Amino acid sequence: MHKLTVQYTDPADPATFDAHYREVHVPLAAKIPGLRRFTLSKPRGLGAAAPYLIAELWFDDADALNAGLGSPEGAAAAADVQAFTVGSVAMFAGEVEEAVVG
Amino acid sequence: MHKLTVQYTDPADPATFDAHYREVHVPLAAKIPGLRRFTLSKPRGLGAAAPYLIAELWFDDADALNAGLGSPEGAAAAADVQAFTVGSVAMFAGEVEEAVVG
Repeated sequence: MHKLTVQYTDPADPATFDAHYREVHVPLAAKIPGLRRFTLSKPRGLGAAAPYLIAELWFDDADALNAGLGSPEGAAAAADVQAFTVGSVAMFAGEVEEAVVG
Repeated sequence: MHKLTVQYTDPADPATFDAHYREVHVPLAAKIPGLRRFTLSKPRGLGAAAPYLIAELWFDDADALNAGLGSPEGAAAAADVQAFTVGSVAMFAGEVEEAVVG
């Protein structure tokens, strides 16, 4: 599987961020063609600060991810990312492989 | 499920990093009690640099993760992280939830 990771840091106002994310952004991102799974996490840092929110969007492969992001629905979700007032948004994508098979 | 994420940036020598990671670190981390799944990814950045390697270690819940990291095997794996010459190592942990249930 191929995964898009989006890490948001330091929202100016967490409650505003959370409401917009849940009510506007999740429904937009959920429409991206080829999306197989969409998970969220608010991790705690171990020894250093963690991102405020991590979104992970799963696709069958790199082609499906690129097609999804390049679709009108992908563009709408990407445009909505700009609506968040946060410290930073980092996005990266790649194949996820099992380190241990068994 | 509860996930520990470890993000390594900018290895001084990628080939040395990869060899140590695969041959020494994976076998150590694989021994951590309670580890349910262990995945690796070398993502590409979308608009900005991505971490060089992302390891994700899955546990049943926060207690299992904490017990695993606190075990002798967890301590051995954590000590081995110090052997890598990298730009940074970020670790964070948290519950992962489905954004879209369908």
